[in-house]
Amino acid sequence: MELWYTEKQTDNFGITAKIKQTYVHEQTQFQELAMIETEEWGNMLVLDGMVMTTVRDEFVYHEMVAHPALFTHPNPENVLVVGGGDGGVIREVLKHPKVKKAVLVDIDGKVIEYSKQYLPSIAGKLEDPRVSVQVDDGFKHIHDHKNTYDVILADTTEPVGPAVHLFTRGFYQGIYESLKEDGLFVAQTDNPWFKADLIRSVNRDVKEVFPIVRVYTANIPTYPSGLWTFTMGSKKHDPLNVKPEDIAELDTKYYTPRLHQAAFALPKFVEDLTK
Amino acid sequence: MELWYTEKQTDNFGITAKIKQTYVHEQTQFQELAMIETEEWGNMLVLDGMVMTTVRDEFVYHEMVAHPALFTHPNPENVLVVGGGDGGVIREVLKHPKVKKAVLVDIDGKVIEYSKQYLPSIAGKLEDPRVSVQVDDGFKHIHDHKNTYDVILADTTEPVGPAVHLFTRGFYQGIYESLKEDGLFVAQTDNPWFKADLIRSVNRDVKEVFPIVRVYTANIPTYPSGLWTFTMGSKKHDPLNVKPEDIAELDTKYYTPRLHQAAFALPKFVEDLTK
Repeated sequence: MELWYTEKQTDNFGITAKIKQTYVHEQTQFQELAMIETEEWGNMLVLDGMVMTTVRDEFVYHEMVAHPALFTHPNPENVLVVGGGDGGVIREVLKHPKVKKAVLVDIDGKVIEYSKQYLPSIAGKLEDPRVSVQVDDGFKHIHDHKNTYDVILADTTEPVGPAVHLFTRGFYQGIYESLKEDGLFVAQTDNPWFKADLIRSVNRDVKEVFPIVRVYTANIPTYPSGLWTFTMGSKKHDPLNVKPEDIAELDTKYYTPRLHQAAFALPKFVEDLTK
Repeated sequence: MELWYTEKQTDNFGITAKIKQTYVHEQTQFQELAMIETEEWGNMLVLDGMVMTTVRDEFVYHEMVAHPALFTHPNPENVLVVGGGDGGVIREVLKHPKVKKAVLVDIDGKVIEYSKQYLPSIAGKLEDPRVSVQVDDGFKHIHDHKNTYDVILADTTEPVGPAVHLFTRGFYQGIYESLKEDGLFVAQTDNPWFKADLIRSVNRDVKEVFPIVRVYTANIPTYPSGLWTFTMGSKKHDPLNVKPEDIAELDTKYYTPRLHQAAFALPKFVEDLTK
């Protein structure tokens, strides 16, 4: 007998992956959570029917949420990750020696718990002494912490379920106020093939709040269309002013100093969504 | 009743697309050919069980085979397309006013015939007076035409079926000899997630023949992993010396002057395959 996980990424298209076993499948307080062992991608975390991360390709997403922001800010001492309970973004943040404190705020403690158990290569750094893990509402957290962070990274699910209010102008305004005077943030902002309207509206909203707004992309094979966008909003520092020679070599598998600026060179049809 | 086309891109992973109807499904002299109407991607050409092109996302592949090469060569008058019977690469080649003659050599006349019938937005330019369409073996063609072309574009299927000898050192040597003294070529060279060994071996082979070898990528959502590589071999002109300001604006949906160099900035794990 063969078992396959099939995700309808749209009503008419999807991916399918052969499964070895299902470790967890439950309704948490906030969402439907599954932890599956796949043949192709290793262990895979699925929330509300959408692949969040897999052991094999997680490095792309986690590196590309963290490093463009952390190499754009000259002194990222205090970093907040909203969502990201699997711990992958935190792991990348900690590669930057300037980081003194990294706070993770995920609303769903079950994501953190099962990631530690089934995704240790991703979640292993959540125990680091520089990290503070808080099970709480990210929206509330930023409103309770004004003028606090140098960098905020929004590693959220899609705008359905618990993350729905994390794709609103109010959220970006809250992030602005939670950042210090030269702070910046990055949010994952879905894919341009199936969610063009979302990218367009997020871009418009972030531009109303931040003076510098830049979109970049990365290839994530288990995400819809394989092309993912990230939106950076910044008060002062422009990622396009960062030169390859200013970027320290880190131990990465996707991000490189030369890729930093190149990731911001968008395909024409994506660029058109940001105008 | 719902019909879905499911392509196993590896033994353990694939894509699935809802179908409206199947226009053609037959064994040609060379391969299994299907022309399917899908909900998400429009009409889709499938050869030997692999998506070759779809009406909705074809622009990425066809632009990215043609434009990096044609903007790297200062005077691309004579261009050969090996394979590419759907006509998409030819359509992009003809956007360059310097092109005087574009020869298409595909071994399978059925691909050309059905593309004209079911993919008119892609194949429509095959009737252009600058184009010569020849149903023939591309390997044989290049050996019969020494010192003839400025640019050769290898728009082949994967290295199974009729294209198996188009991923060999002998093919690259033949291309070298078929090019003029400052000629260059581009070949599609599959994806780094599932075909790392192929990219590594092609890179090694092309480096034995051409002094300048560069790899670049593009996102193609209906191809395995969504991340596609292309390899350019050049006798004299380096694509990395082409500046955005030297590139004329064309009517494109993916390629842009700024994307030209950025496409060559590889993710670390891809870069490692080329060393």
